Amino acid sequence: MEASIRQLDAFFNPKSVTVVGATKKINKAGHVIFKNFVENKRRGVFKGEIYPVNPHEDYILGFQCYPKLTKIPGELELVVIVVPAKTVPEIMKDAATKNAKAVVIISSGFGEIGNHELEREVVEIAKKAEIRVLGPNCLGVYDSRTGVDMLFLPETKILTTGEEVVATPRPMMGNMAIVTQSGAFGAAALDYLAGRQMGVSKFVSFGNKSDVDEAEMLHYLLYDKETKVILLYVEDVKNGRAFIEAASKVTRKKPVIAIKAGKTEAGAKAAASHTGAIAGADEIYAAAFKQTGILRVRDMEEFFDAAKALVMQPPAAGKNVAIITDAGGPGIMAADECELQGMVVKRFSEKTLEKFERLKEEGKLPKFATNINPVDVTGSATSEMFEYAAELVFQDPEIHGVILLGLHHTPALQEDYIDRVARVASKYNKPIVTCDIGETEMALHIRSRFDKLGIPAYPSPEDAARAMGALVKYGLYLKKKGFFEEYMRNFLKEKQKQPIQTLL
Amino acid sequence: MEASIRQLDAFFNPKSVTVVGATKKINKAGHVIFKNFVENKRRGVFKGEIYPVNPHEDYILGFQCYPKLTKIPGELELVVIVVPAKTVPEIMKDAATKNAKAVVIISSGFGEIGNHELEREVVEIAKKAEIRVLGPNCLGVYDSRTGVDMLFLPETKILTTGEEVVATPRPMMGNMAIVTQSGAFGAAALDYLAGRQMGVSKFVSFGNKSDVDEAEMLHYLLYDKETKVILLYVEDVKNGRAFIEAASKVTRKKPVIAIKAGKTEAGAKAAASHTGAIAGADEIYAAAFKQTGILRVRDMEEFFDAAKALVMQPPAAGKNVAIITDAGGPGIMAADECELQGMVVKRFSEKTLEKFERLKEEGKLPKFATNINPVDVTGSATSEMFEYAAELVFQDPEIHGVILLGLHHTPALQEDYIDRVARVASKYNKPIVTCDIGETEMALHIRSRFDKLGIPAYPSPEDAARAMGALVKYGLYLKKKGFFEEYMRNFLKEKQKQPIQTLL
Repeated sequence: MEASIRQLDAFFNPKSVTVVGATKKINKAGHVIFKNFVENKRRGVFKGEIYPVNPHEDYILGFQCYPKLTKIPGELELVVIVVPAKTVPEIMKDAATKNAKAVVIISSGFGEIGNHELEREVVEIAKKAEIRVLGPNCLGVYDSRTGVDMLFLPETKILTTGEEVVATPRPMMGNMAIVTQSGAFGAAALDYLAGRQMGVSKFVSFGNKSDVDEAEMLHYLLYDKETKVILLYVEDVKNGRAFIEAASKVTRKKPVIAIKAGKTEAGAKAAASHTGAIAGADEIYAAAFKQTGILRVRDMEEFFDAAKALVMQPPAAGKNVAIITDAGGPGIMAADECELQGMVVKRFSEKTLEKFERLKEEGKLPKFATNINPVDVTGSATSEMFEYAAELVFQDPEIHGVILLGLHHTPALQEDYIDRVARVASKYNKPIVTCDIGETEMALHIRSRFDKLGIPAYPSPEDAARAMGALVKYGLYLKKKGFFEEYMRNFLKEKQKQPIQTLL
Repeated sequence: MEASIRQLDAFFNPKSVTVVGATKKINKAGHVIFKNFVENKRRGVFKGEIYPVNPHEDYILGFQCYPKLTKIPGELELVVIVVPAKTVPEIMKDAATKNAKAVVIISSGFGEIGNHELEREVVEIAKKAEIRVLGPNCLGVYDSRTGVDMLFLPETKILTTGEEVVATPRPMMGNMAIVTQSGAFGAAALDYLAGRQMGVSKFVSFGNKSDVDEAEMLHYLLYDKETKVILLYVEDVKNGRAFIEAASKVTRKKPVIAIKAGKTEAGAKAAASHTGAIAGADEIYAAAFKQTGILRVRDMEEFFDAAKALVMQPPAAGKNVAIITDAGGPGIMAADECELQGMVVKRFSEKTLEKFERLKEEGKLPKFATNINPVDVTGSATSEMFEYAAELVFQDPEIHGVILLGLHHTPALQEDYIDRVARVASKYNKPIVTCDIGETEMALHIRSRFDKLGIPAYPSPEDAARAMGALVKYGLYLKKKGFFEEYMRNFLKEKQKQPIQTLL
């Protein structure tokens, strides 16, 4: 393990964690964070030692409390600071004395409100002692596997009616890492992903990023086995060269999806007043993302939609996409969005068209089904028709990806079409994404069953097309750089470890 | 009532309806449609007479069956045809003999598969007899108020597990009309709107639009009291002049939101093979939409999001938007999208800035809250802070609309901020839209409470910004044409009839 990797590992998998500012007052961040570790230790998830630091308490949640870091008998690895900004330099000195490896400063009151001098002072002490710092002014780290959890936002809230509701959930274990400059956006992302049953490997909120930044974190995640896709929310990048270098290395092996906030003049001004970030000309970011193969998305929804596609499906080896639908209008909407995203919805090869004609003659597809592209199996759609049509377009060597719109409203369509299509798709190393429109039981069932079988399902034709767009763009980048085959080999190897189980 | 309006009224509020092809076979469209009317009559919703036509039955669902239209003793107003295409000319002749006013041809097998001659023959018979025709190859009409319901898609389906689930629901009564060339998209729209608790006034699926088309339907809906916003899905417009004339008239009083499918080459090809629609150059449509004030949207989600905003909120009198947030990052994302949509997120007036400073001095806003624009009340946000900030920006005469991002994850924020903000907003005639991110209980509660109070809530900052964009674009169109004041007067009059009830 490289030295820098080993250093950052202390943030995610420490032998001990110390919470400076741990308290018994249940509404305080210092309580919530300490309790997270205590509970995860009791559940056997967090395996390190735990120390609370608070000069006014003897015990917190059954753990002996220390007046200051230097009084702790054991070795310190990770220190989490949740006390007012002005006391932080003193604490950092103690951390240095105790040879701590990593410090997360949750506290705000530093550069973001003009206290640059204080922030510099803290970082200098840390640098001298070779302590790595995350923050200040951040949410810190959440690791679904090791039980490191610094999220201090209340997991539930009591409404004015007295009812207790889930407010900030933890998503299940999974393969997306979230790396975010905005803590608020990060918390919102966890809420979104938990609700959509999308799993997270690691969550890192940087805040002022006085020391550890995007470049180092990307580099660290390159070696993280649990992370397959990296979601990056960024307002500004301070060290452009390091960022480009790290990103170029990472995107060969793992897709990085980015929201760049502050891309317009209005947004840049908002960013400047928010964190003091000088966003810089958007063209520079656009060029850097392009050069490094970072997939830039337009908005929050595309951010998560692209991540879901890239976790579940292999990249496309080219830009030719087949659309299969039982709904003419939505088929056209998907075709429109494909073209806008730079994909090609071309006429199938003569050979494929002949095969379609044969299926019609055999009565396996409706006589009036359209079979150029999109394939429209019409409102008479059955499960078998989707299966036959999928098989044909997957076979076509000129087709690199498949968008399947199986709108459930047609009378004869049964939901077993999902497992049939999944079985067909599993024979080919080409990506597939699907869509069903609607919010009623049947639509929710269809989308969730597809997801369960590793085929990402979306609620609109355009969402599905944009998700395929991410698979195509990433595939084209890998091809251009000569890493496509290697990525595909690894992807398929991982997939074999978790084969999908259809009901057929 | 104009003659043309009276004619079309027969489709939505007929004194009698006759279903040709009514049957006892429960999986057939002829059964489902007839049963819809029978059930709505029994519930007292549909008030007209009902006649089934089928030469092989004596009674269907307790109603006396007739072998053909001419044998029915009563007067015919609306006739719904659900029998094979080749028999339709004969039936149309009978409808002419009986002086029917309106005929819906659900059946397919006409122009869309090349049988143009048959379609022409049917329309000629109808024209001579002054019968108006909807279809063929369509889903027909659904009217939430009169109980006219021709949707033959199964309302529930039985899964392979034996479980019965809702498949094609009917949305609640409401104020959006759906006018769609694609039946499949129409059915999907009903599913979406039902699931999102968005109400529908009328639903019309045109299919081949051999007679009644978009222009006439827009004109009809102009006079429909229940319809406040019109959602239009269109692939091609045949009579451009009539369309532009009708649209120009309608958009003065009611917003029309359009998806134009087939806007790219790939999409246009798909449309041509789907319905034979020749989509024509997209620039022509773009120009026509712009000229007539039709709001064109990018995709399905924006389609419904804009409709929700325009049903609930007044248009904006200008393009200056204020953003209030407790989450810095999402505030920047909203500012970015505002600028992309042509809105302006400008610095507040000195007077407003002074008022903010005073609030800070009084301890009513956090010391480090940003107050230029966006206003960031920070992670210390409370309900009162949102209330104060909203009051200030609504007061500013230079601000035309407000986007409020109340992310619930911040520890101190209670959900009563919703009612406080709604009370503030109700004092001003300016639009407001809101956003909370997440899928957990608290997020769902917040968005649904806002919706209930007539303030549209969205799940992402960009969605909220685009919804405000629709209110701004429509407002600017009305201003340019000189109809803003009149629209606003009507909007406020309607709103007074249904005042919102906050809990405060």
